[in-house]
Amino acid sequence: METNQTDIKLKTPIRCIVKLGGAAITCKNEFEKINEANLVTVSSQLREAMMFGSSSGSVLEMDWSKRPGMTESLVKVDDFKEQQVLDFSSFVVIHGAGSFGHFQASTSGVHRGGLNQPLVKAGFVATRISVSSTFIQIIGIKRGIPSVAMSPFSCGWSTRERNIASADVSAVVEALDSGFVPVLHGDAVLDEALGCTILSGDVIISHLAAHLKPQFVVFLTDVFGVYDRPPAEPNAVLLREIAVREDGSWSVVNPTLEDSDKQVEISVASHDTTGGMVTKISEAAMIAKHGIDVYIVKAATEHSLTALSGKLRDKIPDDWLGTVIRHVS
Amino acid sequence: METNQTDIKLKTPIRCIVKLGGAAITCKNEFEKINEANLVTVSSQLREAMMFGSSSGSVLEMDWSKRPGMTESLVKVDDFKEQQVLDFSSFVVIHGAGSFGHFQASTSGVHRGGLNQPLVKAGFVATRISVSSTFIQIIGIKRGIPSVAMSPFSCGWSTRERNIASADVSAVVEALDSGFVPVLHGDAVLDEALGCTILSGDVIISHLAAHLKPQFVVFLTDVFGVYDRPPAEPNAVLLREIAVREDGSWSVVNPTLEDSDKQVEISVASHDTTGGMVTKISEAAMIAKHGIDVYIVKAATEHSLTALSGKLRDKIPDDWLGTVIRHVS
Repeated sequence: METNQTDIKLKTPIRCIVKLGGAAITCKNEFEKINEANLVTVSSQLREAMMFGSSSGSVLEMDWSKRPGMTESLVKVDDFKEQQVLDFSSFVVIHGAGSFGHFQASTSGVHRGGLNQPLVKAGFVATRISVSSTFIQIIGIKRGIPSVAMSPFSCGWSTRERNIASADVSAVVEALDSGFVPVLHGDAVLDEALGCTILSGDVIISHLAAHLKPQFVVFLTDVFGVYDRPPAEPNAVLLREIAVREDGSWSVVNPTLEDSDKQVEISVASHDTTGGMVTKISEAAMIAKHGIDVYIVKAATEHSLTALSGKLRDKIPDDWLGTVIRHVS
Repeated sequence: METNQTDIKLKTPIRCIVKLGGAAITCKNEFEKINEANLVTVSSQLREAMMFGSSSGSVLEMDWSKRPGMTESLVKVDDFKEQQVLDFSSFVVIHGAGSFGHFQASTSGVHRGGLNQPLVKAGFVATRISVSSTFIQIIGIKRGIPSVAMSPFSCGWSTRERNIASADVSAVVEALDSGFVPVLHGDAVLDEALGCTILSGDVIISHLAAHLKPQFVVFLTDVFGVYDRPPAEPNAVLLREIAVREDGSWSVVNPTLEDSDKQVEISVASHDTTGGMVTKISEAAMIAKHGIDVYIVKAATEHSLTALSGKLRDKIPDDWLGTVIRHVS
């Protein structure tokens, strides 16, 4: 992996990397539709978690672009002048595409590569436009968070046979050190072997976690966590805690399952072409083995706020719903 | 200048770098309003110029996102399957912000730096959202051109005292080599001395021209070229040809002015905070001294199409309106 970085030095240690799952922030069965109610709640929770322990109280709008039907911006400059500081603890946000980008990518087969085919080349362009517009809407709504878009393709990230080949995180580190919240997303990227492919948000998270060593990672999804079978089934059991060993292998420690070695059945939205729930646990285990706690939790609930605030690091409350994946020595 | 590149090797030599001036593609006196008629014509001319000598005839829509009021994409996949190739000569597009971003940047003073001030920090975020949305609209409209957004801040470009400090063009080169048209724009960036500042599209062009060595550079603007005084004045004379010497100094060679050493008066829209017309000539001269022809021409006219097509490199027609800035040995 040519990552051009061996020693990442952050001014302030990074607190958290958050994945906003596509299924949690878009309407998965409707083409290019944001789940606005969820996204507003998620944004508020993110802001609350980032401001934790900080003196900056009021929510200051940072999207000064005009609104439909208006001819000028409504920004109140004086509000900012009254504000003493604008400090946020160090977060990185990665969002999935959900119902954005998926149609374009699957129609054209961008993930299979072959840029010499007009359909694939056009699909690459179309996918990038779609995932970037999601992004714009997300940062537009995430008011009060000083977020800056950092599109992996633009950052020069590329793959070889779908594995990360080049992913210099220095631009992300500089943005963090300047007090911004970098926002990345699953993207169409160039692939040294295939020509092009899709780089998923989950792969981006693993890479950033390994290099930035956050205190914890939160996956916000549309179910309460990881279950032992599809969560819609009547006897589905939420896996509350998964222990990860040094070699990355993992097992469920709470609840105690009758057959703890059995394969967890896959429960994942059908449009998630980037991997199912087993893939998700395995990716989470790769993060957890670095000593980084991973929480998989339903977005826009009291449980997600608890996870984002970092309170689970000390003690997991009995009434908390979600899955904790962490290293045991 | 730490640019991390000494030998840029492009698979195919780059043909042209085009600047879409903010004044030409937005309505300069209206907050965040695209000049859509101009932009459609500019896009068509760009496509025609890029396809010059290529076998790809039909215009294939590459924005497959849904349109307002529609629930699904209108893309015709079969059209792409019938297309044999999708070849474009190698172009890079840089656009100015025009009436986007300017309000946000000037209200907050982002160009002066000072990220510890909440107003500047918020203005940085607000500026980036505004210039990125311009961009989205532009690539949306530029149908049929395989363009990919490459935001300078996301690419990790930064400045020191407003001069480029770090600007790795390798991601731009890789996009070009894969047959895409990179689209960059003036952006808010981090500055090692000031904290942050505005990196103008003109500085980006100079940097890319010096490193990528295109055959020619075209500045599309809202007047016919460079005049000897404000073009609205009755006796304003269009400067048709400016000769640049080895040291970057320049003089007007056509028409022969009574006093050829006199300062060209500045004619520039008041919202262009990134420099006036003399700055523009000086920047163009820095490009031309590398042996790269520079054409300054009114956007969306027959003259701009002539310039974009590269026909001026052989001979400048008598009826062509615009300014040619080139090296004389």
